[in-house]
Amino acid sequence: MAMPDSARPRPLPTSASYSITVRLYAVPDSSVVGRLANAVSEAGGLVTAVDVSESRHDRITIDVTCSAANGEHADQIVASLRLADGVEVHRVSDRTFLLHLGGKISVESKVPLRTRDDLSMAYTPGVGRVSLALAAHPEDVAKLTIKGNSVAVVTDGSAVLGLGNIGPGAALPVMEGKAALFKRFANIDAWPICLDTQDVDKIVEVVRLIAPGFGGINLEDISAPRCFEIERRLREQLDIPVFHDDQHGTAIVVLAALTNALRCVHKGIGSIRIVVSGGGAAGTAIVDLLLAAGVRHVLVWDREGILSPTDPSLNPSKQSLALRTNPEGVTGDLHDALQGADVFIGVSAPGVLPAEWIADMADDPVVFALANPDPETDVDKARLYATILATGRSDYPNQINNVLAFPGVFRGLLDAQAGQVTTEMLLRAASALAHCVSDEQLNAAYIVPSVFDPSVPTAVAAAVRDAARPVERIRGDRGME
Amino acid sequence: MAMPDSARPRPLPTSASYSITVRLYAVPDSSVVGRLANAVSEAGGLVTAVDVSESRHDRITIDVTCSAANGEHADQIVASLRLADGVEVHRVSDRTFLLHLGGKISVESKVPLRTRDDLSMAYTPGVGRVSLALAAHPEDVAKLTIKGNSVAVVTDGSAVLGLGNIGPGAALPVMEGKAALFKRFANIDAWPICLDTQDVDKIVEVVRLIAPGFGGINLEDISAPRCFEIERRLREQLDIPVFHDDQHGTAIVVLAALTNALRCVHKGIGSIRIVVSGGGAAGTAIVDLLLAAGVRHVLVWDREGILSPTDPSLNPSKQSLALRTNPEGVTGDLHDALQGADVFIGVSAPGVLPAEWIADMADDPVVFALANPDPETDVDKARLYATILATGRSDYPNQINNVLAFPGVFRGLLDAQAGQVTTEMLLRAASALAHCVSDEQLNAAYIVPSVFDPSVPTAVAAAVRDAARPVERIRGDRGME
Repeated sequence: MAMPDSARPRPLPTSASYSITVRLYAVPDSSVVGRLANAVSEAGGLVTAVDVSESRHDRITIDVTCSAANGEHADQIVASLRLADGVEVHRVSDRTFLLHLGGKISVESKVPLRTRDDLSMAYTPGVGRVSLALAAHPEDVAKLTIKGNSVAVVTDGSAVLGLGNIGPGAALPVMEGKAALFKRFANIDAWPICLDTQDVDKIVEVVRLIAPGFGGINLEDISAPRCFEIERRLREQLDIPVFHDDQHGTAIVVLAALTNALRCVHKGIGSIRIVVSGGGAAGTAIVDLLLAAGVRHVLVWDREGILSPTDPSLNPSKQSLALRTNPEGVTGDLHDALQGADVFIGVSAPGVLPAEWIADMADDPVVFALANPDPETDVDKARLYATILATGRSDYPNQINNVLAFPGVFRGLLDAQAGQVTTEMLLRAASALAHCVSDEQLNAAYIVPSVFDPSVPTAVAAAVRDAARPVERIRGDRGME
Repeated sequence: MAMPDSARPRPLPTSASYSITVRLYAVPDSSVVGRLANAVSEAGGLVTAVDVSESRHDRITIDVTCSAANGEHADQIVASLRLADGVEVHRVSDRTFLLHLGGKISVESKVPLRTRDDLSMAYTPGVGRVSLALAAHPEDVAKLTIKGNSVAVVTDGSAVLGLGNIGPGAALPVMEGKAALFKRFANIDAWPICLDTQDVDKIVEVVRLIAPGFGGINLEDISAPRCFEIERRLREQLDIPVFHDDQHGTAIVVLAALTNALRCVHKGIGSIRIVVSGGGAAGTAIVDLLLAAGVRHVLVWDREGILSPTDPSLNPSKQSLALRTNPEGVTGDLHDALQGADVFIGVSAPGVLPAEWIADMADDPVVFALANPDPETDVDKARLYATILATGRSDYPNQINNVLAFPGVFRGLLDAQAGQVTTEMLLRAASALAHCVSDEQLNAAYIVPSVFDPSVPTAVAAAVRDAARPVERIRGDRGME
């Protein structure tokens, strides 16, 4: 007999990222597949594939692939399979680790190398003529080499995902994943550069010295406040664009999502009050882009409380941020800040926002709880209070995902051979991203497009390309708007 | 009437590296293709393809592709085509430049990125589990990332091919070509790193700091004597192999070619006298490998004369080289050095060896004139004197080409997860390469295998892998030999 829904324990959400393949030996029997599927689902796992890989008269080999919620849960599923009648567990493979064996990216030759003639054009002596031409005309390097399409994904491993300071080697799988996304979504050739230093001067120096081979620099997972200085100094020194994705990629997607949330709740950006939780890399960049977009009331809350310029304990970055957001020096905790606020944007830590506090916000509250994998608030409870709710997770509506921004941003930068990243570009990218959701599609559960919507990188790239055009032409365009 | 061969001017050798495609419009006419082919060959060009790309009643469009000897010669061919009856030259394309448009390499994703589940394994949140595992077990980085198969091709652009100090941007096409060769011949993922500095300390620092993402470092086209210090210091500081191809790649192929040359002329390596012309990067590494292989008599000649430890004008590298080769302080010019020598190895400059001087060498002289593209001696004249002649060019027999060595060397290093490059590895690689030419194949015009012989990288890799095994096991093997 089925339990009523309210009495059933809420199952843990499973994820393909905790997917395992269990190879089992079983006595041939028409009911064995059913028994195995039951064993997985009784343990709360989700079967995604069953393959009979070998069949003999006395034994069949079955591969059962299923998603679990976490590592412990995966162990429980395997334990449940071991208990099934007439079944022997032979081997358990973790699909995510299998996928990573040998790395996730490769370098391929775009030119044929089958004959001596091929070699003589792609390498010596033919390549010498191209090199001589480039020595005489350095402006052609981007056209005749990968520089025109290549991005260095640079990290020092100091703030990797939500994992903290795990160092450059452990960061490499993340950077490879980023490179794979660059190719998948914008046909960009990105290469990971994992640095064996966390010294600001050395990072700036290394990136400056390797820049000749790249058309752009994507800084990644570098901790605040070091990331601000590194980006600023590199932008001053290099003639290629430098973009810290944790800052500006996040800011673009947040501004786009906010733009669409405001379309839903019919509020204007100039009159809303925003509370940003988290004054790190993402929070700082979000605040700056919001201010550039016309937001006039924003408070930043961090572990020190509401950031206030009179607080002597703040580091220089946070002091400057406090000056930009809270010149009057309002003080208090997060609950104080939220009174009457229209929007909460969390880029901080799990659970800092009790769902009930949302009731103290203005009408039609907008809540972006972006801490990953565990948001700032209990999503199921927050739903009861917030008119619009967005997270960083793929298993809820409105996923705020940087992959909506960075591929298109760099596609536009490279296409325009832009020498720098401007605030104008970020604003236009956010606007283009917001408008990938049409009026017909827009609703409280769909304020950002799907990451697989092919129009997204194209639209973002076009916006960045337009913004990269000479200032005169932009001015002309603005005059016509 | 055909001219007798002796009266005919010797045509310039054409090369695919100077290949052009000429698009022409012609009045439709059954003889037009013949007339165009004649026009090219009258100008000394070699037609390699004729395509009629469009045919209308009043006009046909024809693409004629042909090889020239150099740029001026290409212009002469085009001029000859312009003179053909009823033909209009529309456009001339340089095939080598066309091939370079957009660069020669790309980065590809090895994992599918079609669904949210794919993203959750290759990127967040799944990748986080892999990163955490690597933070706990750094020894697994090579297994679960591209580090296990990646090589940085590092240059400062100071000594690119025979072109000199053209800088990092102009060097990029060469490094891309090298990366393409790494993939083609050894399935290695190599990425170009072109440095905006020629300062030894900075180069060492940059390479050290980017090393976490790579399984090996291939130094390329860095001028002597800076390259010696850079390599030495990097080898001291890094736990991945560092290999300056201009030095050791060349030395391996030269030793292999010499081994086979001596098989032909029946001389033993311990008794021959060798003159090396050129005390730069390649010359120094060649000498060192020859000495390690058992050569006892070698003199180095450079622009200062025969290198002698008593010459106060020598830089420290050359002084040290002089001590290793000429402790008695023999002095003189190249002609003096050659008296009675068995082998000449030139890695220096065009034309320094008058062919007649070869007559003053010992019986069965072996001459390797490797300056590129113009060898140390007039090859057609030298043939009259030398028993065995090798060059760096593909249009003569016995091409000494680094691509015979570096792909296999790095394949072996990566497979063994070797932390360093040893002389033992270089010696074994040279021996393996030499033995890719069987006794049946071996003759004075075939002392090195073809670069397209698929057994070459495999054999070289196996030799390096064997040499990379723990010292104890190598000793054990030696005991059994």
